[in-house]
Amino acid sequence: MQGLNQDLPLLLSSILEHGATTFGDVAVVGRYAGEDMDYNYRRLEVRARQLASALRQQGYGPDRFVGSLAWNTHRHLELIYAATGIGTVLHTANPRLPPAQIAYAINFTGYRTLFIDPDTLVLAEQLAPQLETVRRYVMMAPPSTLPPTSLPELLSYEDLLADGAPGFAWPVLDERSACLLCFTSGTTGLPKGVLYSHRGTVLNALSTGGGNAWGLSADDAIIAIPGFFHCNGWAVPFFGPMYGARLVLPGRRTESAFLHRLIVEHGITVAPGVPTIFLDLLRHCRETEAGLGRLNRLFSGGTAPPLAMMEAYLRDYGVRTIHGWGMTETTSGVTMSFASRDLPADAALAAMRTQGKPMFGAAIRIADENGNVLPRDGVTPGHLQVRGHWSAAGYFRQPEVEAMTEDGWLQTGDVAKIDPDNTLHLVDRSKDVIKSGGEWISSQELETAAAAHPAVREAAVIAIPHPRWQERPLLIVATAGPVTEQELLAHLASLVPKWWLPDAVSFVEELPHGATGKLAKQVLRQWLAEGRLGVPPVVSATAQ
Amino acid sequence: MQGLNQDLPLLLSSILEHGATTFGDVAVVGRYAGEDMDYNYRRLEVRARQLASALRQQGYGPDRFVGSLAWNTHRHLELIYAATGIGTVLHTANPRLPPAQIAYAINFTGYRTLFIDPDTLVLAEQLAPQLETVRRYVMMAPPSTLPPTSLPELLSYEDLLADGAPGFAWPVLDERSACLLCFTSGTTGLPKGVLYSHRGTVLNALSTGGGNAWGLSADDAIIAIPGFFHCNGWAVPFFGPMYGARLVLPGRRTESAFLHRLIVEHGITVAPGVPTIFLDLLRHCRETEAGLGRLNRLFSGGTAPPLAMMEAYLRDYGVRTIHGWGMTETTSGVTMSFASRDLPADAALAAMRTQGKPMFGAAIRIADENGNVLPRDGVTPGHLQVRGHWSAAGYFRQPEVEAMTEDGWLQTGDVAKIDPDNTLHLVDRSKDVIKSGGEWISSQELETAAAAHPAVREAAVIAIPHPRWQERPLLIVATAGPVTEQELLAHLASLVPKWWLPDAVSFVEELPHGATGKLAKQVLRQWLAEGRLGVPPVVSATAQ
Repeated sequence: MQGLNQDLPLLLSSILEHGATTFGDVAVVGRYAGEDMDYNYRRLEVRARQLASALRQQGYGPDRFVGSLAWNTHRHLELIYAATGIGTVLHTANPRLPPAQIAYAINFTGYRTLFIDPDTLVLAEQLAPQLETVRRYVMMAPPSTLPPTSLPELLSYEDLLADGAPGFAWPVLDERSACLLCFTSGTTGLPKGVLYSHRGTVLNALSTGGGNAWGLSADDAIIAIPGFFHCNGWAVPFFGPMYGARLVLPGRRTESAFLHRLIVEHGITVAPGVPTIFLDLLRHCRETEAGLGRLNRLFSGGTAPPLAMMEAYLRDYGVRTIHGWGMTETTSGVTMSFASRDLPADAALAAMRTQGKPMFGAAIRIADENGNVLPRDGVTPGHLQVRGHWSAAGYFRQPEVEAMTEDGWLQTGDVAKIDPDNTLHLVDRSKDVIKSGGEWISSQELETAAAAHPAVREAAVIAIPHPRWQERPLLIVATAGPVTEQELLAHLASLVPKWWLPDAVSFVEELPHGATGKLAKQVLRQWLAEGRLGVPPVVSATAQ
Repeated sequence: MQGLNQDLPLLLSSILEHGATTFGDVAVVGRYAGEDMDYNYRRLEVRARQLASALRQQGYGPDRFVGSLAWNTHRHLELIYAATGIGTVLHTANPRLPPAQIAYAINFTGYRTLFIDPDTLVLAEQLAPQLETVRRYVMMAPPSTLPPTSLPELLSYEDLLADGAPGFAWPVLDERSACLLCFTSGTTGLPKGVLYSHRGTVLNALSTGGGNAWGLSADDAIIAIPGFFHCNGWAVPFFGPMYGARLVLPGRRTESAFLHRLIVEHGITVAPGVPTIFLDLLRHCRETEAGLGRLNRLFSGGTAPPLAMMEAYLRDYGVRTIHGWGMTETTSGVTMSFASRDLPADAALAAMRTQGKPMFGAAIRIADENGNVLPRDGVTPGHLQVRGHWSAAGYFRQPEVEAMTEDGWLQTGDVAKIDPDNTLHLVDRSKDVIKSGGEWISSQELETAAAAHPAVREAAVIAIPHPRWQERPLLIVATAGPVTEQELLAHLASLVPKWWLPDAVSFVEELPHGATGKLAKQVLRQWLAEGRLGVPPVVSATAQ
């Protein structure tokens, strides 16, 4: 039909173009490896165009891949836009993962060029012999700092960029083509790749930047704490130029004194991160009796933020916490808690405790073991499934992994309850929830309850097979002081239903953790099977 | 490539579905024709599904059209979602246009069913003999109010809806298919149709609802003042369920006492409208010494809002004005002024005076007569062109109208300047700007300057052909008191460059206006040609 809307694709390059044209003077600040970069979106785009042009000259274009093993720096940001702007997919490898997992992901993807940082050089040298396809490394640093290396070919980013034309025009791409690739952290088995499309990534930034979530505007300044390799840095690389918010890139460093200085000096208004970062920052502020400048909200992801932390930020610093839920498979956030500025503190904290509501463009539901959709009654737990423009439809080159329901919803592997108003409450990971007599016991809730005991340093709960109840909970604790099993069970009895009480308690020196700091429950299950926890690997029927 | 994002279309029905699921209890309030409707998004969606099902039973589906001649009521809102949700295009005819123009638009589109309101019945009866395709009228009122009528077939909306199934499932449509059709007001010649796609309409609401423009969240309550027939009611029907904002539908009435009562009673936070509405409301508040409740921002469109008005709202009521620019051809807003809450009043007012910046997804540029793109220097005026997801690519069934540049930008017919930071300043309509010696004189600026004289009730400036300068300005005034040509020119000389001063001043009783209240300059040009303005239709060369 004639006269319809103009048909333009949703591309990452259009975000940068918008930023450069409309917010050209807005500051982009990089602090990394002793190099202070103070520039803006106009200059960022010129350099991204130039790098894109250079990559094109090297033969890069649609359906090709490049990789990065790098922190949140201005060059890494340029690379995101340069590579994706010509249709090449950027795999942002996570330098914090075990080297074998990094090598696996790079080899699985298969590309020739890997962009590295001065302080991922040693890691790259260590990885290089295992990397089957990488032939060339590009050091994202000024040319003068190019060091001697065992790498086969090491180029300077600035030399490469200098070959490109600053007036290079962004090509028109298919918005459904891939732009970025992240891998899951592989706590169970090998990492799996999640490929993001231009369309999904743009819609994610557009929707989650809105008023019920990040609430961004040109009045904001964001500090990019989550690594770009982690869910695309939670969309921060796109929020900046899309909304005209100032962007501060802290490089590798996450220690609180450094972050605090950047937050105050650059008038940061919103800081995203995991609770650990915010707990450190809070401690720093208390110890130094320092304020937080213009900071008015945290965006907390990764795991549920402690209530006491959110309360302290709100009451002592006027900083609200936006609590989001998402995973590698959902680009960044799916649901976000919205605590209106007009809400009194208690009501705001109650809202912040939940995982919030889905943004427009995303949907959530829960289902039972047989895939029947369960009611949103705030009580019934079920397997969480998501649908939306920025959720994955499967894993990268792994069609054999069944991620989707028959009617097109992604299975998240989480167990959750949903309120009638579509507010999400995460209960547990599906594989960690304890199925006892047809009901579910949340290992996470038990762990939180156990950890509230002053003598408990850290707690884990796993299932023990049980002939009658199918599974029963086993509590495993690393202690901070003397405590008996009886004392712990009495403590728990005041916090959880009686039938949730663990059948046994095992005391260990240290709990095992994975590469990203999460509890490694699969190791605990192995310890249980090997009899190393001091309890039999199966509860005998007669014990009940 | 495997593992990409889920591929779901951007549809209006997904906005309503999101609202019903996530903000089901949020209030939707209708006040029209003595019927008080107080319901919510959950109920709205049930009724919209039911109506959609009934329309499907009647054979409606993709590529079909229906029409409405109606005000902003809850049934009209249901109809928007019901029709578009099954792929049928809703033509929202403007009851305020001259009957001949309404009939032309309906006949040009050609459909069988027209939805009307109790108080558009008389108009519909008047139009009916001229409507070539309409065979059935549906009265959007409770069944009991169906009146005797000369219309061939008059159905009750509620009877129609009752035939539908409330559990009807929204079909998956092509997001590039059309959903809504508005016509330009046809100040020059016949109205032209602009067809909006689902994709463009969703992206428009998603982007312009963001923090640099409307800044919407579940904390807001919006009063839907602009008619749905006018640029889709400025996206308000979509903002409500997308952001979970409460929605108040005032029906036909726009008088300030009524609007004021709704604003205060329902805790309205944002009110869109034209300056006239806001001037009346301001006067009402001053006369009654009433406050504005929770209202904190106006969204002013249609024409530039007077500075004194914005200042009064800001200083006396703490209400900011968001000043937007858009046209029927651009769905709703393209640019919007963003005055941060942190800006001091003077800086905020300076920002509000401009037409603002384009939102992500829209782009602006200016060009000279030959189509050469001009610099964004804040000084050079040029023909404004726009590009973006929600701008038209041409007119409905009028391929002969050349609306686009060769490289795909829409020609707006406006003259504007653009600042280096992409801020838009409208100068004039292209057809009204006076081309004098290779330079441009803004008729609008001259009119504003003349209207500032206390003896001037209204002023218009048109071009007189000139043998040497090509064109020179003629000032035409309707006076409010005695004033001479010399006094007016002296007054202007203090406000505009000397070479802008009109070559002649003509005094008239009344200036002519079009259907939407705009100055009818084409009538003035005709009066000039006919010698009715007391000045020769061409300036003689010797006069200079």
